[in-house]
Order: sequence, then C-alpha cells, then structure tokens
Amino acid sequence: MAVFTDVDEQDLTKFWEDYPLGEVVSFKGIAEGVENSNFFVETYDARFILTLFEKRVHEEDLPYFVGLMDQVSSSGFACPKPIATKEGNTIRTLAGRPALVTSFLQGLSRKRPSVEDCYEVGKALSIFHKAGQPYAESRPNNLSVHNWQDMYRKDRDAFSAHNSTWCPLIDDALATLSVHWPSDLPKGHIHADLFPDNVFFFHDQVSGFIDFYFACEDFLAYDLAICINAWCFETDGSLNVTKSSALINGYESQRPLHDEEKHALPILALGSALRFFLTRAHDYIYHDPSWLVMPKDPSEYVSRMRTHLRAHSLIDYGIWVA
Amino acid sequence: MAVFTDVDEQDLTKFWEDYPLGEVVSFKGIAEGVENSNFFVETYDARFILTLFEKRVHEEDLPYFVGLMDQVSSSGFACPKPIATKEGNTIRTLAGRPALVTSFLQGLSRKRPSVEDCYEVGKALSIFHKAGQPYAESRPNNLSVHNWQDMYRKDRDAFSAHNSTWCPLIDDALATLSVHWPSDLPKGHIHADLFPDNVFFFHDQVSGFIDFYFACEDFLAYDLAICINAWCFETDGSLNVTKSSALINGYESQRPLHDEEKHALPILALGSALRFFLTRAHDYIYHDPSWLVMPKDPSEYVSRMRTHLRAHSLIDYGIWVA
Repeated sequence: MAVFTDVDEQDLTKFWEDYPLGEVVSFKGIAEGVENSNFFVETYDARFILTLFEKRVHEEDLPYFVGLMDQVSSSGFACPKPIATKEGNTIRTLAGRPALVTSFLQGLSRKRPSVEDCYEVGKALSIFHKAGQPYAESRPNNLSVHNWQDMYRKDRDAFSAHNSTWCPLIDDALATLSVHWPSDLPKGHIHADLFPDNVFFFHDQVSGFIDFYFACEDFLAYDLAICINAWCFETDGSLNVTKSSALINGYESQRPLHDEEKHALPILALGSALRFFLTRAHDYIYHDPSWLVMPKDPSEYVSRMRTHLRAHSLIDYGIWVA
Repeated sequence: MAVFTDVDEQDLTKFWEDYPLGEVVSFKGIAEGVENSNFFVETYDARFILTLFEKRVHEEDLPYFVGLMDQVSSSGFACPKPIATKEGNTIRTLAGRPALVTSFLQGLSRKRPSVEDCYEVGKALSIFHKAGQPYAESRPNNLSVHNWQDMYRKDRDAFSAHNSTWCPLIDDALATLSVHWPSDLPKGHIHADLFPDNVFFFHDQVSGFIDFYFACEDFLAYDLAICINAWCFETDGSLNVTKSSALINGYESQRPLHDEEKHALPILALGSALRFFLTRAHDYIYHDPSWLVMPKDPSEYVSRMRTHLRAHSLIDYGIWVA
C-alpha cells in the first residue's frame, strides 16, 4: 500500500483548475491499492479521489474502465463516478502519468468478513453485473484460461527453484482446467478483482465497489468464483462453506444462476485460484526490493487450488444442486 | 510514506465509540509520515486524523507532545488539536499501538517552497514559539549537541566503510561545534522537525503545522536553523540566500532575534545539518529492505554541512548584522 508518484502541489492546483469543482483545500496520498497511486482531494464542499495509473495499467484500457464506472454509477450502482473537466475530458495527465478524478465513496472495507458480509457482497456483485449489461465497450480478460499456460511457461523454472511442490500442482490444475473449463456460460462485464479491500460497507450493507482496473468481459460466474477465493477462506487455509453458501445465495437473490453455471463453479474457482497464484508467485519471486509494496505471499493460493481440485460439485461449497 | 500497522474496521468502530464524535463513515490509511501510521477518519460532519505511534516514538513522551499541541491550538495557533474520549482520555491503545485522534487540518504542503513561503513559515514559526511559551511541561532534546558524539561513535565504522569522505567532514563539524556551540540563548518549546511536509499552506499563508513528535525544549533559534536547512537549499545543493533572508525576516516580523541568536545561526545551522545527517545516514546504512519506507539519501546534508562550515556570519544567509 503506497503512493508511487509524488505530486507537486502547484502542478495539482493547475491540473485542478480545469474541473468545475472549486478550490482544493486538502490533498493527501492514500495508502491504498498496490497498482496505482491514489490521493484524497478535498474542496470546500466535496471530496474526490485522484488516481495516477502506474505502469501495470495500460493507457489504452482506461476508456473501457472509465466508461464502465460511468455506466454502472449512472444506473445507480455505488462506485466511484469519473469526473470530467469543463471541456469534458476524464482521462488526463499529471506528473507524467495518466490521471483520473472520481467521486469519493463512503464506507469501510472489511478486514475479517462475516457470513452476512459474504451474503451482501454476493448480492452486490449480481446487481453490478446487471448494471453493466447495457455497456457496449469491450475488453477481453487477458489473465484467463488462454493465458495461464503462457504465464506459467515463462516462470516455470523460477517456480521450480523456489518451491518443488508448486509445479506438480500447477501441472495438475492446468490439466484439469484444459479438460473441464466451460466453453459457454452467460458473459458480461466483470470486476475480476473483488477482494475485501475493494468493497466498502456501511451499516452492514455494501456501500460500493472500487478499483475497476482489472475489469473485463468474461463469464459472470467467474467473478463469483473469484469472490469464493477472496472472501470465503479462513486464515488456516480452509474453505468456510457457510460463507461460500451465503455468498452464492446473496448472488442468487438478484440473479439466479443457471445449472451449468452452478456445475462450473468448482472449475471456475480452480482457475481463479491459479490466476492469482500465477501473478502473486511471479511478483513474489521477481520482487524488486526498491518497490514500496511488499508482494503478497502466494502460498495461500496453493491450498486453495488443492481445495478446488478436490471439490466435486457445489455441495462442497455449501450449495445443493438438483 | 506508508501505513505500518493495519487496523481492523471492527476494532476501529469499537475504539471510536468512546469518543463523542459520531459514527465513522470513511476510514483510509494516509501515505504521510515516515515514523507513524496515520489514518483519515470521516464522520457525518467532520474529519479527523488517527495516529498510531510506531516504535520510534517513546510512549512516555506522548503526554508532552499532546499537551503541547493542546496548548498551542488552544491559544489559536493552527495545529492538530488532540481529541479526548467521553472520559477525557487522549492517549489510548489501538492495534497494540499507542493511539491519538486529532482534528483535521486543511491546507497543502509545498513540494517546492517559494521565497514568499519561506517568509510565511518563518513568521508562523515565531508565532508557534510564542504560543508555546506558557506550556509548563518539559522534554529535553535528545538529538542535540550532547548526543551527536555518541551517535557518531556507534556508526563511525559503518560510515567510514560506506563513504570515505564522510568521517573527515563529521570530525571537522564536531570540532567546530564543540568550540562554538552557544551556551545560553533564549529557550522554549521547539518543533524540531519543521520540514515542508509538516507545514500546510492555504491561500499562500501557513494554515498550520503538523507532526509534533520530535518537539522538545531547546534554543528557539535552533528551530529556525533547522528551517534554513529544510527550506532554503536548492536541489543543486546551493543555499538560496533570498530564501534564508526571507525566512529570518518572517521570523523577526513577530519576534526580533537577539544579536547573540543572530551570530549563533551559522553554528546552529551546522549542528542541525549534522543532526539530520547522522540519523539519515544511520537509517540509510541500516535500512531493512522489509521496511515500507525508502530511507532518505543523507548526502544532501553533506553539502549543507560544508556550506555552514564555510559561513562566517549571517551575511552568508542574506541578513545584515550590525
């Protein structure tokens, strides 16, 4: 959690003059996010978030992300709303980085989500999926099943040297995924990174999602599978089936899953666990000590992969399927 | 710049219930400060800063810092005001750390202070010194002339191995300081760390000081000497005498310096440069890569020491002395 780019107060003032938002009275870097630099900006009557996009986000993807946030916030789903300059521009440049100003979202993220929180995030996820439906822009998921083999090939020797148990497990996961990955499920715009850090709660309800910079088009149920990995495992590595069933029930309260989506959840959850394992293990091994962010330990995703490889059906996630 | 300690939202909510401040609607870590963890806390009608004190701040010093902030803010000087619980406590515990809630100060710090900013910070410094006068508590400066010899002795071998030019310069500075350090100048409560990060501006005036966790009793003019080092040097290492004279003139607009304070400024500035060199060089060499903060490069203080060693009188800082 860090700010990677310093912003000069004079440069900010000049940048801010182009918005119809009034004078800046406070400006602070936020220790939030591991991919971009985020700043809290306060004017006399409102608060905003300024995001500077660091190298991991491709500038050509920004119009998709900004359009999606604009679409879903306009339809009433709570997420940061992109703010345009007086001339109508949202994506700009500050301190040599692509820059975006959004509205400020109230609420607090949960460090230890409860069963009720899992229900609420499942419910909010399905509302988000519906809110994104009319959005016409497109962005493929470039961290999905077609990419894992390549990602793995590049890092295989390093993984092998780092931990001898990793590669046999990945080989096993990739073999299973290549056979069982679904070819056709309902698709749409997904968040693709809905970890507890990226969900705010207020009064025990979800007050909004943030950080849409992995969003893309993919199977809607894959977003739910990401949430199973991100929300339903205990610190001892075990799956809490009360949480996973609450998450899925919450989702189904707004959009019932098709049978083929339900049957696919274990394989989607395995794929999602592999996806986060691959990027985390890469960052962990190739971590530059000068980075201001400590990479996350990938090993928790090893046990998640094992759990999903062992799962036979949704019953293993606390859901009865006919 | 980082948050060193994670705070669980449930722990925060429980901690916050003891204050007469209303419900928390937003909570974010701030990428500010290199010694402590700071969080932005928003309620329905106000904003606050929560500080968790990390290991460098001694818990027994906190009553002095909190009392000083309380004293000077009550007298009208703009600084964070410590907030007490319903039971009247200010220093508390959260996430295993000593914790303090203060009011939120508006304004922006300057990355590149102008000559006018130097005048304003000098003026605000003397107002702060006067506001602290009635404060009866006491805390010696444990990073001053009596400590430098010891600090140096412990790190001397490491300094020598790191850069062969450092030790001859430090020996030279210590010899000069031992002869010329003033024995008696007006004393009082000083900020002792008034870098541009710790001063907020609004509408070209100082809107307040923050971060009083090096405050102590020492020569008032030593605080001004710290500001000469912190505000008046250009990025090429040269002293900007227009800035130093503006800083001193700003200070004297509220409290004229005594002649002996004026004559002592070069030696006080040398001492202050050595003090920041010693702690920065220590942190630089013994930097733990797992820290979330990159240590500051000490070498800029090498050239500052050289500048002050060459200085003969206040004329070298742009001030005429009779």
